[in-house]
Parts: sequence; C-alpha cells; structure tokens
Amino acid sequence: MSEIKKLVNDKLKVADELLDGLVEAYDGECKRVGTRSIVRSDIPDGKVALLVGGGSGHEPIYHGLVGRNLADGAACGDIFAAPSPDIVFEATQAVNRGNGVLYLYGNYAGDVMNFDMGAELAEEEGIDVRTVLIWDDACSAAPDNKKDRRGVAGLVPIVKLAGAASQGAKTLDELVATAKKAVLQTRSVGVSMSPGSIPATGNPTFEIEEDKIGLGMGIHGEPGVKEIPMTTADELTPMMLDLVFEDFEKDEEVEALKKGDEIIFFVNSLGSTTMMECLICLRKAKEILDAKGIVVYDTIVGPLVTCQEMAGISFSITRLDGELKKLWDMPCESVCYSKMEG
Amino acid sequence: MSEIKKLVNDKLKVADELLDGLVEAYDGECKRVGTRSIVRSDIPDGKVALLVGGGSGHEPIYHGLVGRNLADGAACGDIFAAPSPDIVFEATQAVNRGNGVLYLYGNYAGDVMNFDMGAELAEEEGIDVRTVLIWDDACSAAPDNKKDRRGVAGLVPIVKLAGAASQGAKTLDELVATAKKAVLQTRSVGVSMSPGSIPATGNPTFEIEEDKIGLGMGIHGEPGVKEIPMTTADELTPMMLDLVFEDFEKDEEVEALKKGDEIIFFVNSLGSTTMMECLICLRKAKEILDAKGIVVYDTIVGPLVTCQEMAGISFSITRLDGELKKLWDMPCESVCYSKMEG
Repeated sequence: MSEIKKLVNDKLKVADELLDGLVEAYDGECKRVGTRSIVRSDIPDGKVALLVGGGSGHEPIYHGLVGRNLADGAACGDIFAAPSPDIVFEATQAVNRGNGVLYLYGNYAGDVMNFDMGAELAEEEGIDVRTVLIWDDACSAAPDNKKDRRGVAGLVPIVKLAGAASQGAKTLDELVATAKKAVLQTRSVGVSMSPGSIPATGNPTFEIEEDKIGLGMGIHGEPGVKEIPMTTADELTPMMLDLVFEDFEKDEEVEALKKGDEIIFFVNSLGSTTMMECLICLRKAKEILDAKGIVVYDTIVGPLVTCQEMAGISFSITRLDGELKKLWDMPCESVCYSKMEG
Repeated sequence: MSEIKKLVNDKLKVADELLDGLVEAYDGECKRVGTRSIVRSDIPDGKVALLVGGGSGHEPIYHGLVGRNLADGAACGDIFAAPSPDIVFEATQAVNRGNGVLYLYGNYAGDVMNFDMGAELAEEEGIDVRTVLIWDDACSAAPDNKKDRRGVAGLVPIVKLAGAASQGAKTLDELVATAKKAVLQTRSVGVSMSPGSIPATGNPTFEIEEDKIGLGMGIHGEPGVKEIPMTTADELTPMMLDLVFEDFEKDEEVEALKKGDEIIFFVNSLGSTTMMECLICLRKAKEILDAKGIVVYDTIVGPLVTCQEMAGISFSITRLDGELKKLWDMPCESVCYSKMEG
C-alpha cells in the first residue's frame, strides 16, 4: 500500500500545529500556554482544577476534552508520546486556582512517569496534586492487575463526569472520589481491522493480516485477546460485549452488570471506521443490552478516541449511580464531545 | 489495494441497519417510521416542521441532524441514493403538525425529483409543503447558475440555523425566509485525496492519482475545479479559501465578505482525514481570516459530512446577521452536531 496522503506541513511539527488549530477551534475560550498545553481562559478562582493529557495524534482526545464543564486544561505530548514533565508542570501552574489539581489520564508508562515528575515540580511550588489513572481497557490485563491496564475510549465518559463534578467540587478529595468511581465503573473493549500511520514516517502503527481482526487490541496496536477471522457486525458485537460483561463479573471491586443497571454506552470509531458501521454495531449491541435488562441512559457514538486513520471500533460501558447520573445531565461543550442539558 | 474491511452484515441492508442503530443512539427521543425515515418522538402540535434527507452512507448527516432544536425528521435513501417519493411522503406525514413542512436538503437531481413527488402526495393530503434547496458547493457551477450547484457540508450550519428558527416560527413562510437566508450566506469548497468505497461492492467511489488532490471535487467524487499536485496544509488552505472568497465576490445576490463580517467557519473531514489534519488547516485558515478582519463567531470541526472512508476536507463559511447569530446561540443536540447555549 502506498503512503497515505496527509494534509500537513513539516511532519515533525504536527503536534504543535494541530494544537494551534485546536485553540482556534475554541474561539477564545482556551489559550495555549508554555511548551505545549491548552487551558481554559476563564477558570474561576478557587476552582478544583481538572487536568488531562497524553500523546497527540489521537484527536479529538485528549486536548479536545478541554471545554465547558469538562477539563480545565491538557498537557500535550508529541505524536504518540507522553508530555514532558515540564509541559505537565506548566499546564498545572496554568490551571491551578489554589484549590488543588486533579490529573486524570490514561495509564501508559511514559505518561505516568512524566505526570508524576510534573506533580513533583508542582508540589515544590505548593500546588496540591492528586492523580487518578484511567485503565478501562478490559483486554489489557486481568481485573486484579489494574496497574497494567491501558486507558482507552472510556476516558470520554470518565472525563465528562469528572469535568461536571469539578464545577461544584469543594475539595480536591471530593473530585478524586468521583473520578475514581467513574473509572471503577467504566470498561472498554476494542477491535482493530487496519492500522493508522505514523505522521512522521508514513509507517503503519502495526500489522494485521487482510482477513483478520484484532480482538482486544489497543489503540496503538498493542496485543489484545487474539486475532480472529474477519466477521460480521452481528457476530463481532456479542463477542465484544461478552468481554465487557465478563470483566465486570470477574472484578472483585465491582458488581456484575445486572438487570436494571443504568449505563452510558459509547461506540467509538478508532479513525476511518465509518459512523455507518458504528451504528450497525450499536443496533446489535442495544438488542443484547435490552435482552439483559441493562438500561442505556445515554449513548455516545463517533470517532472520539482515534489513532490516525486506524480502522476499528470500541465499546465502553460506564455504570451510573444517582450521583453520576446527575453529573451526566450537566451540559458540556468541547471539540471532542458536547451535549445539551438533561 | 485490497478491499476495505467493513463491519457490516448483509451488504444490501446497511442503510436499514444503520438507521435502526441511529434510532438507538437517540435513546427514545426519535423513532423509525414507514419504510426508512426517522422522526422526533415529541414534535409539538402546531410546530412548523423541518424535514431533511438524502442518501445514506454519508453519516452522521443527513439523518444525524434530526435532534433537539434541529430537524424534526429525515427521509433516508439507500446508500448514495435519494429516498423514494413514498419515503418522503411517509416522513412528511410523520412530522406534520398542521402548520406546514419545510423540506431542506442538498441539491441533487434524484433528491429533487423524489422530494417533489413526495410533496405532491403530501399536498393531496392537505399538508402545506415548501422546499429550500441547499447548493453551497461553490465549485459545482457558476454563481448565476445555482440550480446546478450541489449541496455539501454547508448543510450542517444551515440545518442548525433552520432548526433553531423552526422552534419559534409562527408560519411556514417565516421558516422558509430564514432557511433561504442561511443558504444564501453559506458557501463551501472541498478537496479530495482518496475515494471512499461503495459498501455493496467494495469499489471506490472515484479514482485519483497517488500524487494528486482534487480541488473542488464533490463528496461522491464529482468533478471539481482541477486536479493539483498533492501539497501541504499551508499551501492548500489559502487556495480553498480564495475560492470561497471569490464566490461571495462574484455572486450578485450577496455582498463580498468584508472586514467585520461575522461567520461560522466549518472544517469538515470527508471521512478518514484525521482531526489532526483538520486542525492544522484550521490554524492556517484562521490566520488568513484574521488578516482580512473576518470574525469567526463559532468554529465547527470534525467528520460530519462524509463519504465512507474518503480522504479530503471542506471549508464552509456562513455569514451571520443579527437574526442568524441569535439562532446560532440556541443550544442543540443530535448525533451529528451538538452545542451548549451561547
């Protein structure tokens, strides 16, 4: 296959140029600070701040989740790379309003290392920092080994909930508790059919046979459960959902999903997989959820957590309780995800 | 290139199955009616109704624009095909609340023929129907020959504005006037780099050389201005914007874009072109608009008007006046486009 045509300029500057574009997309609501961060322009004094971040190249996340009733800022890495400790520190200073900063991001070794170093720098300046890791990918490690789990598409509902909670949170502890609950109640399973390409080189992010589909594969092509023959939407959907159900069952920290549970159901495209395909899978998934008596409180569908033009989808389930439902109802607006009240 | 892997079932039933999924995405807010239409569940009595529609396969449009403060319903064709007159008629009956129905859709011959026949059937039943065609593609015919212009991505801001107007419109005439104004003030220019594929056959929707980019090409690969060598984001962006500016200038029905004008600026991905690329182009576009003193009131960016996994982007500009600005500020929610108040 020949190299994918991409509309870029200097291939080594894409992370910076896209961030400039992202700031423009916010029409004055956000500004760029430091080396490579984006923060809201109007964070009120005393607000418990919410900082997200991670590697670039997965747009509209992570930095596209900065917004109204969402994250206050994002520390942005280069393409597929963690933000440096300096970037994390600069972003922390920029969002800090004296009442603490929550770091909420996907569990990747490089990100953890750099965010932790950024936190140390911030704490030296007297800024109170806490970290909640997102590890929703059910296929990346066993439920009793969450420190080895990756963060994938579940971060969208998790950041939405934490962003809403951060608007009224009186203390950093309060926000940490809600974010932890949202993480604990969220699981994702993804599949991939073809790779994205690395902007700097044009090389594919992984390889997969023409007639295969990677079940449980990560967003950069990390190994998953197994490769299976390419199949139909209606055959794949129950396989993916079963992995999610199984994980809730096996995990001793949460209850199994059961009749009457209310959830957010998120069908994510990893890039070039069409909304048509997402909707066809959603149709089948809804049939299965209905049969189990699991109530979908709200549905998200779209290419929100991507890896360039990678083909694949993921399902994420977030179980809601009364507190999370109220937070879900709050309107929000960002480049990645927006909703009206209710 | 081998056939793209798509997550579907029966390749001839994708339009129906995706519509079932779309209904599920609305969590009870919308229902499927007749052969292949989707309508809101709670259209109030006496509301002037707004009906959109067109071929499937371009998701999240057209049917994804049914929503809160947006369209009341959509008549959906098969993949890349106009809805039949019966479907249009069924959708019209389902959205009609006794105060008239506006048909607002892209100017394609098949759609015009079938919507017109649907309107005749509706009028025989005493339903008052008016049509406003969307012809925003500046590259598809000269400004004095709008009947030959195609409707492309500009339909998103146009339907957003008409949907807002339809909430308070007292008469069908009033809604027609606002929709016409939104159409008159909207222009788009698109480029394509590689085709999508037809779900039923796997065949590409058009052909283009590896090192070329189709300037002004339509969303199905209709011929545009010319093919140019593949170039950078910063070289392509001014070329595309110049075509938009030129069209406003040459068109005797509107004023040229000038300093102080307020606009909605929409960067659309035609499918697999990444948000990263859209943002890099937005960055350059904003620089050019700023230099001209044109004020971006709000920015939209994302893959909202697609043709399967086609690579390419389009820019759309909608000039606002006081009335349209107020309508823009109204919150809205749908699978295609959502925003908070203000």
